[in-house]
Amino acid sequence: MDTRQVKNVGVIGYSGNPKETPVKEIAELCLKLGEELGKRYNVFTGGRDGVMELVSKGVKSVGGFCVGVLPWEGEDSNEYNDVVIKTGLDFQMRSFILVKSVDAVISVGGEIGTAIEILAAYANKKPVILLRGTGGWTDRIADVLIDGKYLDNRKLVEVYQAMSVEDVVEILERIAK
Amino acid sequence: MDTRQVKNVGVIGYSGNPKETPVKEIAELCLKLGEELGKRYNVFTGGRDGVMELVSKGVKSVGGFCVGVLPWEGEDSNEYNDVVIKTGLDFQMRSFILVKSVDAVISVGGEIGTAIEILAAYANKKPVILLRGTGGWTDRIADVLIDGKYLDNRKLVEVYQAMSVEDVVEILERIAK
Amino acid sequence: MDTRQVKNVGVIGYSGNPKETPVKEIAELCLKLGEELGKRYNVFTGGRDGVMELVSKGVKSVGGFCVGVLPWEGEDSNEYNDVVIKTGLDFQMRSFILVKSVDAVISVGGEIGTAIEILAAYANKKPVILLRGTGGWTDRIADVLIDGKYLDNRKLVEVYQAMSVEDVVEILERIAK
Amino acid sequence: MDTRQVKNVGVIGYSGNPKETPVKEIAELCLKLGEELGKRYNVFTGGRDGVMELVSKGVKSVGGFCVGVLPWEGEDSNEYNDVVIKTGLDFQMRSFILVKSVDAVISVGGEIGTAIEILAAYANKKPVILLRGTGGWTDRIADVLIDGKYLDNRKLVEVYQAMSVEDVVEILERIAK
Repeated sequence: MDTRQVKNVGVIGYSGNPKETPVKEIAELCLKLGEELGKRYNVFTGGRDGVMELVSKGVKSVGGFCVGVLPWEGEDSNEYNDVVIKTGLDFQMRSFILVKSVDAVISVGGEIGTAIEILAAYANKKPVILLRGTGGWTDRIADVLIDGKYLDNRKLVEVYQAMSVEDVVEILERIAK
Repeated sequence: MDTRQVKNVGVIGYSGNPKETPVKEIAELCLKLGEELGKRYNVFTGGRDGVMELVSKGVKSVGGFCVGVLPWEGEDSNEYNDVVIKTGLDFQMRSFILVKSVDAVISVGGEIGTAIEILAAYANKKPVILLRGTGGWTDRIADVLIDGKYLDNRKLVEVYQAMSVEDVVEILERIAK
Repeated sequence: MDTRQVKNVGVIGYSGNPKETPVKEIAELCLKLGEELGKRYNVFTGGRDGVMELVSKGVKSVGGFCVGVLPWEGEDSNEYNDVVIKTGLDFQMRSFILVKSVDAVISVGGEIGTAIEILAAYANKKPVILLRGTGGWTDRIADVLIDGKYLDNRKLVEVYQAMSVEDVVEILERIAK
Repeated sequence: MDTRQVKNVGVIGYSGNPKETPVKEIAELCLKLGEELGKRYNVFTGGRDGVMELVSKGVKSVGGFCVGVLPWEGEDSNEYNDVVIKTGLDFQMRSFILVKSVDAVISVGGEIGTAIEILAAYANKKPVILLRGTGGWTDRIADVLIDGKYLDNRKLVEVYQAMSVEDVVEILERIAK
């Protein structure tokens, strides 16, 4: 296992209205994830709606700290960001700034933008923790891991699989050891 | 089938020394792909070595036209580029400019950078043609297609599978119809 | 006068060793600027050495909050940044993210990178306060202002001139009114 | 004098309707500039209207070759571009890709975007030729040159002043020697 200092953690996942499918099914899980991360780390997200908003709400409920790395001029920042970075870049290009700025990335469900973020994290040698059972690319990418933990033959960094929020916390602690 | 004007085609795939594995196994195929594309389209690549260099060599052997969209200051441009775009961006961020600038993308083998380009093309609604049998992410991504042709539930654009260079040409003609 | 909410303030200026000319001549001024800004606003800088480091040191000495928006992978972050954004972009391109993310920009001395940041702020409609007497482009740009306060004929936003740190604070308060 | 291979030349300047002030006053000059450059070099512009469009029209009238480096998704490409690069970046950030991709830059009039491009070229060590008498930042920047030819104390590269299109051609030939 790869070990490193972990201070800043990124969370990626579904965008969209938190009260509609598919985000509403995992709303409780996202809030809880935010609470547990918010007690321990600075939390970076893409700063918008969906998983980003719910996790950030959880972070703030425990007095944690949120950084939102937003596309364009930051117009659609959610209300939980302590710092808003307005990248001027489109949805996908801005994701590279998000993953570069953190020590590890947690993935929750997600469509194509999330898939790009998972791969971007790996290409930038940031450990990725897949929160299994959340659907979308978080579950789909698990099917194509090489040796169960790499995203290409260069084996740049490990991809981890967590079955619960407790698992996520434990894996982050192991990475940081 | 999605139809559109096709004038500029991007090719993505393995980087690395063209005389070493895994690129040398598909060297002939890349040259042939370059020849067939070079007779019909402007060919855009990432401008460097590996598949990019071999395809571009094929393009120039038939008098075609190559655009290389390079990372950083373009230091590692291959010798076949007619136009070199120096993006100042890293390997992955520059890939978004490549896929945005073309009408369709052909994928040949490839590690994590290629995986990001496949997803970037799809996210930018550019049809992707997987040249099957070339290994790496080109074959791996085929295992996670939704309904055999989409990369997420939004079904933004089709992903095609070609078994040969002839197939690639035929699919491009169908897309352009 | 243009009025707006001011919560996040950017400071731009000379990079380089804070103990060498030209930065050492304005070291006291930078510390004081940091202190006054740190009591009132979140302070964003380019996160590196020179004016950025001295101002950030001043901000932290009063318990303020610093965000560093760094080029590349953030390798040369100074020790005063609470949040480090690693943009993956070169020195100049990353400056656009800095100016987009703040409500106003204060300029102190500076070579070509600072000149680009002054213009970038104006192009993004962010008020710029020139701290006069600090040399470099901060003083030089004052000579080409249109009607004493604009940087082009579109008159996108005002450029202000401050003669002291007190002046800077007062102008920021006027802008925020 | 700095000498280098010159094959790709960038032209920057006023955007806007070519039939309206201020572009219409310099329309003939732009066409002529395009013709002379088009006989000798590949011409790169920002790909849009104004000076970009008129120069490109001149380039094509003599059978030359134009590359347009466009913001966003390239929607507002003029009709004279042989190659269109869609950068996904905003107006100013995309300018850095334009200046990095050429060997020298010629400036014609221009508002804030042109000013940023002049400074971006200099910061990237690309010689800049100011076509004097065309107004805007092309004339304004001449007033703040250090030793009549530099844009900061680092003296990264020379800024030249041309009084006519013939002068521009001659300076380019001297640079390329």
